[in-house]
Amino acid sequence: MSSRSHPAVFPLDIEVPTQLTEGAAAAENGGGLPDDRVRMKDVQGMPGTTSGLALRLIQFAFAAVSVAVMAATTDFPSVTAFRYLVAALSLQCLWSLSLAILDIYALLVKRCLRNPRVVGFFTIGDGTTSTLTFSAACASAGITVLISNDFNNCWENHCTRFETSTAMAFVSWFAVLPSFFLNFWFMAST
Amino acid sequence: MSSRSHPAVFPLDIEVPTQLTEGAAAAENGGGLPDDRVRMKDVQGMPGTTSGLALRLIQFAFAAVSVAVMAATTDFPSVTAFRYLVAALSLQCLWSLSLAILDIYALLVKRCLRNPRVVGFFTIGDGTTSTLTFSAACASAGITVLISNDFNNCWENHCTRFETSTAMAFVSWFAVLPSFFLNFWFMAST
Repeated sequence: MSSRSHPAVFPLDIEVPTQLTEGAAAAENGGGLPDDRVRMKDVQGMPGTTSGLALRLIQFAFAAVSVAVMAATTDFPSVTAFRYLVAALSLQCLWSLSLAILDIYALLVKRCLRNPRVVGFFTIGDGTTSTLTFSAACASAGITVLISNDFNNCWENHCTRFETSTAMAFVSWFAVLPSFFLNFWFMAST
Repeated sequence: MSSRSHPAVFPLDIEVPTQLTEGAAAAENGGGLPDDRVRMKDVQGMPGTTSGLALRLIQFAFAAVSVAVMAATTDFPSVTAFRYLVAALSLQCLWSLSLAILDIYALLVKRCLRNPRVVGFFTIGDGTTSTLTFSAACASAGITVLISNDFNNCWENHCTRFETSTAMAFVSWFAVLPSFFLNFWFMAST
């Protein structure tokens, strides 16, 4: 018998990490392995994806229509809430258009925008613009209902235009929500 | 020499997971170890913590004051947005009071409420009530500004009471936001 000691082996109930590249891991996850972090990066609607770009374009289009319809009425500057709607939705237009251009660039050069800092910036921007858009839409809705229902004064006001503009603002806000929550979810899960 | 084979040992560069109880892990994390999941469970403001209870009581108090001030005006039922404010803030009152009672129970019997399903329910509830509260506050703010600034008609309206009620509604909404975002963050990180 040899007097040398042999290393004692105690089997442990652990998984040996295989050195997968991110791409291979992502491919495996497509097959059903539960790894939220990797799967999260592939979720459509995030910055740099076609669905993300579609969301930005919807946000921009509805915000632009809302501003255009409201600005087409002659008496909107006499009501503070309608002026605020035009200002807030114009900001929403600029923000969504900028991010749509960034998404197009990212898709063309196949660049990944899902960096925690970049996504953090997008989350803050989406949160701010969506809050402004929603508050403007609610204030306009309150006044539109006041004019059309409580005062029954549509004969001397552009009720239909006010209602259309307000509805477009709400649709734009609905389109910002998925972008905001997806970015926030990504930030929380990384 | 023995002819028996000995197990070959290849040292791997992995960390052996120590079987820590959650309490011990939390204690270690207090010492500076980076583990977001365990640390997240101890964040003040979550359900079942004293800060969470304080947030619920603030939400309830400001929502109750908002409803009381608005309901004290004689002409609020003539404006749809003010009726909506009373309804939405009453719902906020009920929701915040219910969760405050649940927090008191959890604190008294030292029961942990941070179960993913429970937190998911709280997140949906907080998201719904905060959206209703914010929309009601914005609609009321739009009409209050219309009456006081655009029409300069405060001599026959209770502008101060409308403004106070709206401000209280906004404060209540601000107090719901931390609860909502903490719960949403917890859901995303588990």
